[in-house]
Amino acid sequence: MERVYGVVDTTFSRINMGEIAVRTIRAEDRDAKIMRYTVPGIKDLPVAAKRLIEAGCNGVITLGWVGKSQLDKYSYLATSIGLITVQILTSKHVIDVTVHEDEAEDEESLVKIAEDRARKHSLNLVKLVRDGPNSLTAQAGKGLRQGYENAGPIG
Amino acid sequence: MERVYGVVDTTFSRINMGEIAVRTIRAEDRDAKIMRYTVPGIKDLPVAAKRLIEAGCNGVITLGWVGKSQLDKYSYLATSIGLITVQILTSKHVIDVTVHEDEAEDEESLVKIAEDRARKHSLNLVKLVRDGPNSLTAQAGKGLRQGYENAGPIG
Amino acid sequence: MERVYGVVDTTFSRINMGEIAVRTIRAEDRDAKIMRYTVPGIKDLPVAAKRLIEAGCNGVITLGWVGKSQLDKYSYLATSIGLITVQILTSKHVIDVTVHEDEAEDEESLVKIAEDRARKHSLNLVKLVRDGPNSLTAQAGKGLRQGYENAGPIG
Amino acid sequence: MERVYGVVDTTFSRINMGEIAVRTIRAEDRDAKIMRYTVPGIKDLPVAAKRLIEAGCNGVITLGWVGKSQLDKYSYLATSIGLITVQILTSKHVIDVTVHEDEAEDEESLVKIAEDRARKHSLNLVKLVRDGPNSLTAQAGKGLRQGYENAGPIG
Amino acid sequence: MERVYGVVDTTFSRINMGEIAVRTIRAEDRDAKIMRYTVPGIKDLPVAAKRLIEAGCNGVITLGWVGKSQLDKYSYLATSIGLITVQILTSKHVIDVTVHEDEAEDEESLVKIAEDRARKHSLNLVKLVRDGPNSLTAQAGKGLRQGYENAGPIG
Repeated sequence: MERVYGVVDTTFSRINMGEIAVRTIRAEDRDAKIMRYTVPGIKDLPVAAKRLIEAGCNGVITLGWVGKSQLDKYSYLATSIGLITVQILTSKHVIDVTVHEDEAEDEESLVKIAEDRARKHSLNLVKLVRDGPNSLTAQAGKGLRQGYENAGPIG
Repeated sequence: MERVYGVVDTTFSRINMGEIAVRTIRAEDRDAKIMRYTVPGIKDLPVAAKRLIEAGCNGVITLGWVGKSQLDKYSYLATSIGLITVQILTSKHVIDVTVHEDEAEDEESLVKIAEDRARKHSLNLVKLVRDGPNSLTAQAGKGLRQGYENAGPIG
Repeated sequence: MERVYGVVDTTFSRINMGEIAVRTIRAEDRDAKIMRYTVPGIKDLPVAAKRLIEAGCNGVITLGWVGKSQLDKYSYLATSIGLITVQILTSKHVIDVTVHEDEAEDEESLVKIAEDRARKHSLNLVKLVRDGPNSLTAQAGKGLRQGYENAGPIG
Repeated sequence: MERVYGVVDTTFSRINMGEIAVRTIRAEDRDAKIMRYTVPGIKDLPVAAKRLIEAGCNGVITLGWVGKSQLDKYSYLATSIGLITVQILTSKHVIDVTVHEDEAEDEESLVKIAEDRARKHSLNLVKLVRDGPNSLTAQAGKGLRQGYENAGPIG
Repeated sequence: MERVYGVVDTTFSRINMGEIAVRTIRAEDRDAKIMRYTVPGIKDLPVAAKRLIEAGCNGVITLGWVGKSQLDKYSYLATSIGLITVQILTSKHVIDVTVHEDEAEDEESLVKIAEDRARKHSLNLVKLVRDGPNSLTAQAGKGLRQGYENAGPIG
């Protein structure tokens, strides 16, 4: 079966994470088809993911950028609920990459976080879609992080 | 196919953003039909958007005004979840313009924010409905803002 | 077509807002039928609204009273999400009148807020149900308030 | 028609409120059937209520116990949304009795609150299921409380 | 009927709770089949639980690890709502084990909490799935805790 991946990003984001996701997926799964969808902001991500799944995607990655205010955090919460709802209704993975503008103090660090997180979660998406429910089980409980160094296992 | 846009606004708002949206959409997409729906407050927006979509709209813009109290913010959160749910269930875009009364210290600034945000998001709606998933991709990651100056890209 | 309105109120409320709503709707739309439903507290409002719609109501007004604690506010949030969900699933308006016990410092002011809000939103419900999506458009952006004096338009 | 009531409680609770509910319903509606379901904690209540309704219950009472931390309060919020969703999807009442461990300073007061609340809401459930939408209307706006003394009407 | 249990865990977790759950379920219900699914983080748990139920699981346990920041707590809230929604839509239990990184001050305590909670809730899942709605009723109101010592009953 041909695999189709969806990539949804925003014009609000200050980093082109959609491009990173497309490039990473293409390198990892060369035979796959990739569909991209760009929306204004995070609250538009869920419907775009839903539409891509209806258009044939086997899994989607969304790339959101969230501002610093409390209202931005409420929007993040509403969006997260929406993205989870899309997954529940379609039974497809929608991996949610979110970068919060207050995660780092300087822009250089934000860029590193965004690139690392977009890249690693793109690989996660490919594994789940192509290799199935146990593709990540060898890393279960390993304290993996996206955007930061791995925390590692304890105990 | 004839395009039909929905515009939902409120009597609670202190600025006639619905009018701005109607004017902007009409100027941008001259052949389109526009349906308008006015409700009391933000918590009435989701059902109005849903009804407009059932009446044939290909996409909707909602224009909400939110007070300063913590309760207003909870209403904003509930409304946001509702607007996202409408989109998920109908697979249509509902672009959500929200102005918070505490975004600016004086009324003049609020007016500017509201006008800019309503106008830019009306254009976003037209692009997504008329030109599709890649109509905004050239601006992906560009740090676009509505209501404020663009933040611009980093990295 | 005969119009049927639903009125849902609570025994938790300290003011009989359901009575006000019934009286206002009856005065405004003399030919209409009104169905009333009384529940213990706000979290019971959504299912009662849903049941009234299933019993034939074209629109519903709910009248809730919310305590002062943070937990009461979380209940308000859950209820708001539920009332919006009922509207989305039925495509009918459920206008949500909520009075918060900490909105005013004395009981006399609370009574005035509750009466004004219940009355004005009952009129809003009649307009939307009887006169349709543009019945309030002349007041769009006018800064109307229920429970308080109108804020008025700016800009 | 035979009435069937559902009672859902938890092993997390420190008071056997399910027992109180069963006893109260049995005393109030002697011909009814009662089905009981015990789950670990509050987040398991919604599905148990849903299953009891599918098994034939005409209405359900859930009895939850919530800890003191902010996380417990988020769990309360998620559970409340879930219980309201169950009601909306089934159009049956699920009356939600919740006792918060920080409602009182000593255990004796907590016991009194829990017993009073479980008992009064069991009666509310019977009234709504057996006697219908207007069974509580005589008490509308009377400021009734469960777990505390009634606040009484104002205005 | 053959019983099938689902176990969903994450690579974000710092402790292999999925392994504990699998081992506990296998020891408790030797004839059962167990399906495991590993995802990156907590927001991916709901869809994995849904997919396991669609693949035949009679009940699922999810094992999530949550960071310390307020954003992590919002993700916890969104996930909890999602897990409850999965249960409501499928009418199957999804027992939610969550460990918060700020529950304990040292890693040793966190390990003990995680192991105890994963083990006890795995037993809860088996009881509910295999022995039904009254399998835990003898412990109703007993103040049972997972991850900590039981609080015990009062009153």
